[in-house]
Amino acid sequence: MSKSAGEYLSSGPRFAEAEVIERIESFRKRRPRLLDDHITLAHGAGGKASAALVDAVFLEAFRNPSLESLGDGAVLSLPGGERIAVSTDSFVVQPRRFPGGSIGELALNGTCNDVAMTGAVPSWVSAAFVIEEGFRIGELKDIVADMAAAATKADVQIVTGDTKVVPKGAADGLFITTTGAGVIAAGRRISAESVRAGDKVLLSGSMGDHGMAVMLARGDLAIEADIHSDTASVSPLVELLLAAAPSTRWLRDATRGGVGTVCNELAQACGCGVVLEEERLPVRPMVNGACELLGIDPLYVANEGKFVAVVAPEEADAGLTAMRSHPLGADAAHIGEIFPEPADTVVLRTGFGGTRIVDMLVGDPLPRIC
Amino acid sequence: MSKSAGEYLSSGPRFAEAEVIERIESFRKRRPRLLDDHITLAHGAGGKASAALVDAVFLEAFRNPSLESLGDGAVLSLPGGERIAVSTDSFVVQPRRFPGGSIGELALNGTCNDVAMTGAVPSWVSAAFVIEEGFRIGELKDIVADMAAAATKADVQIVTGDTKVVPKGAADGLFITTTGAGVIAAGRRISAESVRAGDKVLLSGSMGDHGMAVMLARGDLAIEADIHSDTASVSPLVELLLAAAPSTRWLRDATRGGVGTVCNELAQACGCGVVLEEERLPVRPMVNGACELLGIDPLYVANEGKFVAVVAPEEADAGLTAMRSHPLGADAAHIGEIFPEPADTVVLRTGFGGTRIVDMLVGDPLPRIC
Repeated sequence: MSKSAGEYLSSGPRFAEAEVIERIESFRKRRPRLLDDHITLAHGAGGKASAALVDAVFLEAFRNPSLESLGDGAVLSLPGGERIAVSTDSFVVQPRRFPGGSIGELALNGTCNDVAMTGAVPSWVSAAFVIEEGFRIGELKDIVADMAAAATKADVQIVTGDTKVVPKGAADGLFITTTGAGVIAAGRRISAESVRAGDKVLLSGSMGDHGMAVMLARGDLAIEADIHSDTASVSPLVELLLAAAPSTRWLRDATRGGVGTVCNELAQACGCGVVLEEERLPVRPMVNGACELLGIDPLYVANEGKFVAVVAPEEADAGLTAMRSHPLGADAAHIGEIFPEPADTVVLRTGFGGTRIVDMLVGDPLPRIC
Repeated sequence: MSKSAGEYLSSGPRFAEAEVIERIESFRKRRPRLLDDHITLAHGAGGKASAALVDAVFLEAFRNPSLESLGDGAVLSLPGGERIAVSTDSFVVQPRRFPGGSIGELALNGTCNDVAMTGAVPSWVSAAFVIEEGFRIGELKDIVADMAAAATKADVQIVTGDTKVVPKGAADGLFITTTGAGVIAAGRRISAESVRAGDKVLLSGSMGDHGMAVMLARGDLAIEADIHSDTASVSPLVELLLAAAPSTRWLRDATRGGVGTVCNELAQACGCGVVLEEERLPVRPMVNGACELLGIDPLYVANEGKFVAVVAPEEADAGLTAMRSHPLGADAAHIGEIFPEPADTVVLRTGFGGTRIVDMLVGDPLPRIC
């Protein structure tokens, strides 16, 4: 028999019971509903509106087991028994070049990371370019060089591609869609279904660097800060983690919507409560300052080289140590824990001992971030 | 010792020898060079400018064995020995709905066909959407329903996807990028390298239906004609062909750039001469009439459900009969033959006994056709 939320929470995070139950009921088993007639920027922000759009339009039409897992990538079982992971992402970031990277590196690393989150090692990438008439070929060459360099660094091959040109005004410069694939080693099972209460939540590094770097690069905020995108292929870090913590349950890179939204997806997928400790959330001071000035919670700011991992409690220390041994994981932190309740919900335990519910991202404070 | 072009051609198509040699020299071993500073619509048309762009920008940066085969898709060899084919395409067709289909069906079928051209059976597709803010969700649902119906018909699953939204004016409605994958049966080798003189060139059906349907649907030509896009997944037809003609050398769907451009790619890839018989080229009267009015050669008009196959001479009749047994191949025809010379060149033998060189498509008479 499962405890009531109140009973449970008395041994977990502290809530006023009535408030908790009311909030839980309102959050439980709900996926947001699509109420709009037209696409808004929020539908592309990776938060609540995106989830509603995906549910109402894409899942409804395409329904099949791979899609329903709602992961970053699909896992395909080949007739010969091998499993490969496939993931796709379009990149529309503006500006196309920002401190720490460009749309080229983003398009390569972002898709490799989605593949890595399935437990696969990304090996192949396809790249499709939609280019606006009049685009400078010199800039295209630079972006393609960034992709090539990122591919070399990530040890993947760009194996096929496509180029479409649309008339002046029909696209804003350049959009790149990459699809990545890689083989999943036998025996690896990364799935929200394997998440259980007591598991630990790790984050591979500091939050919000990419989103803030792009935001400031737009220049219309009149804030100057030395913030660089964290764009990187995290596959080597994933491999280190999985070697040290082979029971790792679940992985997700915290891109659009940030760590807050990703943890909500986790909570909804495993039916558990995800309790985060505010004091343990790694945020660089510069990023924190910029977020404060803009009134944006770093929990919702996009990352392009960070992931959330749910690991078995007995392997958490080893996993964390392994990640910290790699430059990409130097700031890795144990940020929270899985509780059976509040179901489907993310709770943040604040530094003052209070708690608050962390919803999915609502609206789109940072459009065209990737 | 190889014959001279003149010697050879005296037993093949008839040319004035001096003219032939001059033309051959100018076409031989040349891939077009990129001389532009900015992207033009021609760079996306699938013809000469596209080839120059791909060579100068993408191949130059990404160079690797899969890309260099320049096929419709990449063939990936998995550690366990299986081979899978992967192909990607962006779809930017305007208008999004036209007689015979929509961008949804196109995005599904087009990518499945690219996969099928490697000898694989397409099984999985990913779909990434770039959507303009303000796009009507009702239209999105209709397009997605078209994709789902096409997927069911083609027996493929849409396994993963992505949605990005860009601000009003930053894209023209909707762009869809699909990536397809499928397993290649053991022993199948579809490659331009296996093409040899004497092989027969088959075309799976009539030319130009898709391009003309889209062109007329734009409405600015004031031509009314009952022309429908041929968008379809041709995988079943490929399987029939490969069963009847198991030595099939090479396959390519004749999309952007049309049959003329595809045959040039073939000639360049195998180093042979491709001689087409004008009288055997299947074109529907309506399409032919519209092309004449517009001054466009149907050889360069895009198809979305037709492919060129190079088959062994002794299997040509069986292959043709097999294709004609399927509704998608009812108009399949034996359109030409492979000759050792003129190397890298496509020659059309006209109805009057004359010959002309068929170059790759130059410029873009029909932008945003797919």
